[in-house]
Amino acid sequence: MTTATKLSGVIPPVCTPLTPEYEVDTASLTRLVDHLLDGGVDGLFVLGSSSEVAFLPDGHRKVVLDTVLGHVAGRVPVLAGVIDMTTPRVLDHVRVAAEAGADGLVATAPFYTRTHPAEIALHFRKIAEAGLPLYAYDLPVAVHSKLGSDLVLELAAEGVLAGLKDSSGNDAGLREVILGRRDRAVPSFSVLTGSELTVDSALAMGADGVVPGLGNVDPHGYVRLFRAASAGDWAAARTEQERLFRLFGLVNAGGPHMGRGSSALGAFKAALHLRGVIDHPTTALPQIPLGDEEIAVVGKYLAEAALL
Amino acid sequence: MTTATKLSGVIPPVCTPLTPEYEVDTASLTRLVDHLLDGGVDGLFVLGSSSEVAFLPDGHRKVVLDTVLGHVAGRVPVLAGVIDMTTPRVLDHVRVAAEAGADGLVATAPFYTRTHPAEIALHFRKIAEAGLPLYAYDLPVAVHSKLGSDLVLELAAEGVLAGLKDSSGNDAGLREVILGRRDRAVPSFSVLTGSELTVDSALAMGADGVVPGLGNVDPHGYVRLFRAASAGDWAAARTEQERLFRLFGLVNAGGPHMGRGSSALGAFKAALHLRGVIDHPTTALPQIPLGDEEIAVVGKYLAEAALL
Amino acid sequence: MTTATKLSGVIPPVCTPLTPEYEVDTASLTRLVDHLLDGGVDGLFVLGSSSEVAFLPDGHRKVVLDTVLGHVAGRVPVLAGVIDMTTPRVLDHVRVAAEAGADGLVATAPFYTRTHPAEIALHFRKIAEAGLPLYAYDLPVAVHSKLGSDLVLELAAEGVLAGLKDSSGNDAGLREVILGRRDRAVPSFSVLTGSELTVDSALAMGADGVVPGLGNVDPHGYVRLFRAASAGDWAAARTEQERLFRLFGLVNAGGPHMGRGSSALGAFKAALHLRGVIDHPTTALPQIPLGDEEIAVVGKYLAEAALL
Amino acid sequence: MTTATKLSGVIPPVCTPLTPEYEVDTASLTRLVDHLLDGGVDGLFVLGSSSEVAFLPDGHRKVVLDTVLGHVAGRVPVLAGVIDMTTPRVLDHVRVAAEAGADGLVATAPFYTRTHPAEIALHFRKIAEAGLPLYAYDLPVAVHSKLGSDLVLELAAEGVLAGLKDSSGNDAGLREVILGRRDRAVPSFSVLTGSELTVDSALAMGADGVVPGLGNVDPHGYVRLFRAASAGDWAAARTEQERLFRLFGLVNAGGPHMGRGSSALGAFKAALHLRGVIDHPTTALPQIPLGDEEIAVVGKYLAEAALL
Repeated sequence: MTTATKLSGVIPPVCTPLTPEYEVDTASLTRLVDHLLDGGVDGLFVLGSSSEVAFLPDGHRKVVLDTVLGHVAGRVPVLAGVIDMTTPRVLDHVRVAAEAGADGLVATAPFYTRTHPAEIALHFRKIAEAGLPLYAYDLPVAVHSKLGSDLVLELAAEGVLAGLKDSSGNDAGLREVILGRRDRAVPSFSVLTGSELTVDSALAMGADGVVPGLGNVDPHGYVRLFRAASAGDWAAARTEQERLFRLFGLVNAGGPHMGRGSSALGAFKAALHLRGVIDHPTTALPQIPLGDEEIAVVGKYLAEAALL
Repeated sequence: MTTATKLSGVIPPVCTPLTPEYEVDTASLTRLVDHLLDGGVDGLFVLGSSSEVAFLPDGHRKVVLDTVLGHVAGRVPVLAGVIDMTTPRVLDHVRVAAEAGADGLVATAPFYTRTHPAEIALHFRKIAEAGLPLYAYDLPVAVHSKLGSDLVLELAAEGVLAGLKDSSGNDAGLREVILGRRDRAVPSFSVLTGSELTVDSALAMGADGVVPGLGNVDPHGYVRLFRAASAGDWAAARTEQERLFRLFGLVNAGGPHMGRGSSALGAFKAALHLRGVIDHPTTALPQIPLGDEEIAVVGKYLAEAALL
Repeated sequence: MTTATKLSGVIPPVCTPLTPEYEVDTASLTRLVDHLLDGGVDGLFVLGSSSEVAFLPDGHRKVVLDTVLGHVAGRVPVLAGVIDMTTPRVLDHVRVAAEAGADGLVATAPFYTRTHPAEIALHFRKIAEAGLPLYAYDLPVAVHSKLGSDLVLELAAEGVLAGLKDSSGNDAGLREVILGRRDRAVPSFSVLTGSELTVDSALAMGADGVVPGLGNVDPHGYVRLFRAASAGDWAAARTEQERLFRLFGLVNAGGPHMGRGSSALGAFKAALHLRGVIDHPTTALPQIPLGDEEIAVVGKYLAEAALL
Repeated sequence: MTTATKLSGVIPPVCTPLTPEYEVDTASLTRLVDHLLDGGVDGLFVLGSSSEVAFLPDGHRKVVLDTVLGHVAGRVPVLAGVIDMTTPRVLDHVRVAAEAGADGLVATAPFYTRTHPAEIALHFRKIAEAGLPLYAYDLPVAVHSKLGSDLVLELAAEGVLAGLKDSSGNDAGLREVILGRRDRAVPSFSVLTGSELTVDSALAMGADGVVPGLGNVDPHGYVRLFRAASAGDWAAARTEQERLFRLFGLVNAGGPHMGRGSSALGAFKAALHLRGVIDHPTTALPQIPLGDEEIAVVGKYLAEAALL
């Protein structure tokens, strides 16, 4: 592992704009990156769940990496998701991400297969051999196992993991890692929350930053929230978080005829389209797209948040 | 969908032998295919869960397809698993499998993402556009959703699905599909069970065949079981099934320091190695390999089953 | 444990008729018992899940026990469910059931609490001290843990358990117990399936009997099924099972505005009411009752099965 | 519902001391109440999960109610858990609690049965008819369903619920209720967290109080935490919470030969015994008791926390 600077602040998982023909819309992607940088974010995370990584063929993943890394050109660190079922498949993605110049990697535990902690540990050790800072991605809703705090801290102490992106929604577990980091003397280990609705809590506990899907829609809001918390102004942080909490309601714009993932990702993209950032609200197959009335609901949320 | 002959009988999911360097061991793979054909199987299923498909990079998947399809040369139908998270990624695998000459495709519902029945249906419809017979693979333990009988039967009636491989372990659901097939007049729809321990039950209900992981180790046994059931000799079928049930105990040879998947796949490969079919018992990373004592336990099961 | 005769055959879980004021309708209950005995059943199981035991206050449970045991008067064995969260609470029910003269007890693993196999074993050992034949009730959908085959067989060998009622829907696990019973030389251990849709399969594997909720509605059908299987006429058994499978469709008569339990129990009671066996289709609170149109759907199923 | 004062502050769920013969140890229970009141708690919750309510027969439940209510004599409000599977059984407990003089009731959604939101709502409405302030208890780990925020807020607006005890560990859901309470103008609705490791977060969000199992062991600590938060001294609140977080490690004193519930409840009682508050560390059957070495581990945690 290279001795990277500890990652902190707001690092949104970047949505992947698509054309109506389901190709990566690189022009829109570039504008989205500008929109996020303009918001003051501290880094970018491409090829995460909010990027529809599960839907992107390998060719599209490479286009995203090349587009974003080329455009950012080192202004902020760019982490690359290397999401796949098990180690050998992940290692293929690692090679592509390293060649593209990613500043760090984000990997989940194995999924589809039934895993064991010893196998999860071996998985991360093998990925870390690539030499890039490696962030463990804890997302039980997708991976169907929870990363244990002990495992994470052991791999942190070994230098295998540079950080954790905790999207488990379990704030007691988040605190366990934060306190354990202190005990094990791995202060450089970066703890990031993916729970975009309790960012003030996570920062108050000592988390270093946040990876908010909703940050695509309102990066300025999350940056204000982070800055207020960093300044110790918890009242302002809470007010901003509550505003973002209400804005987050747009993820339910899609009706019961679609999955909750389709509704949320469709709403993020509809919001970016309505805000003029991306050209099309298209989501990848087999997701059901939002209809006109559902997009209008998204617009209402934006209007209420003064984002139109 | 082409008008394929209805698939029936014993169609084992073919293990993928690996070298100690984790490359596909094509010589062993060819011998394994011969071993299965010698056992009298009615078809082969490559790139399924027992094939460690979740661990095989795309390059290895292609080697497996080319090796097996080249060697079988049309003697029995060969189905190809196209296992990946969502439609666009699966379609990449479909193209490769079609070019390699696969006789049919096996696909699960989307995973990693949160799905909706309408999205699962769209997923299968898009895959079926390739024109190859498509078999739905119901494997809740890996995919974390269960294919509803209504959905399966609707897609069967539409001609989207040629069959079902039901590895859900839910025999009431299996019966629902078998009876529903009669009601909806889709008799050509093939119902295969992946529950290798209750094959006699499934066949007695009217299932057409079985896809048994353990069939790698003892294809002759599953063929005898199928033939006894086909002849209406249920007592003989039960006796054979009970023998295979006991042999199946080898999947627990691996101790609590590994995952249950590692134990089962490691035991299958150790058994094939002990039986002289494949050169190495190597399993893919990050699976923990069986130790010598654990392999000896596998040997004991084989000896008791007179397979050594 | 007393040396009871091994339990076998059809032992329906007896519904608990209620008055519109939610009191136990003892007259209807007596008629229901007569209806079941007339069907030729081999035993009765009161205070099980299909009896709405989870809804019955202790006072009602006692009325049920006294009514049924008094009316049956030893003609067939009557098992009593002693369903509660943990051992001390179950023991209170055991005392009442023993005083009422129950011929056997049916208990689940502890629930609401997080259990451990050693605690489940201790739980059954304490209950067995009452001296009545004890049947373990494996119902993961309610209890949220699965009884391991090893645990069940160990308790069988110890003489703690007289039998198992397996409502897990896992027929491979059922077979494991049946084969293990042979290996451990506890032939008197009774294995009963609660999976009313695969009774022919279970009996073909060697199960001793069935505890079918649907047996309230059509006891004659289940008795025919059992007798056909006992005579080795598997074709007739399958035909009867398929007829009962289709009849079982009535459990979905209740729409999406109620729970699946309310729909199934409401449908059983509506069917008994339509067949003239019980006076009211009332189900306990807080279950949503079936509406008139939903009851008409139940009637349609009965008509198709020639049960009206 | 009576117009109760809104409940806030520290309301520990009171452990139920037992004699070695598994009877309620009323002398120890009285001392435990004194210990808690001495700590400055704002109320008491008897017959909750930490009280081993799932293990207490009805007779014991009544002894607990009479002992605590008699001894407290109105000095602080005492809530009574009425934990049982469904409405009719819960209503029996409600009558006993009301007669004993409880100041409020705490009930979960139905469990063991499969529930539907409409049935959960009806359940709470029926319980509320008793006229005592009713607190919904959201404990998915035991009840296996999650109370939806919309459902809770609707019942709050109707006057059915006086408050929520949220032990779901889902702080985004907690925030949703807190913000929804403001929107629906039900400010008197009391939101209490049962997540004893993130109390500072919950209070910062606007929760009114906490129901900490660990508060049995160290009530003074939780009172200090609550007071620091109430005074807006978030740094002090966090320091106290982190100390309590480390103390909470004692719940894992019990080894892998027992359930996690046995370990936690056994550790709480061992700690109370070591601190001289209760006479015996006995836990109810079928829980496995802590051994001497495991109790010594609990002692070490107490020593480190300066509680010995």
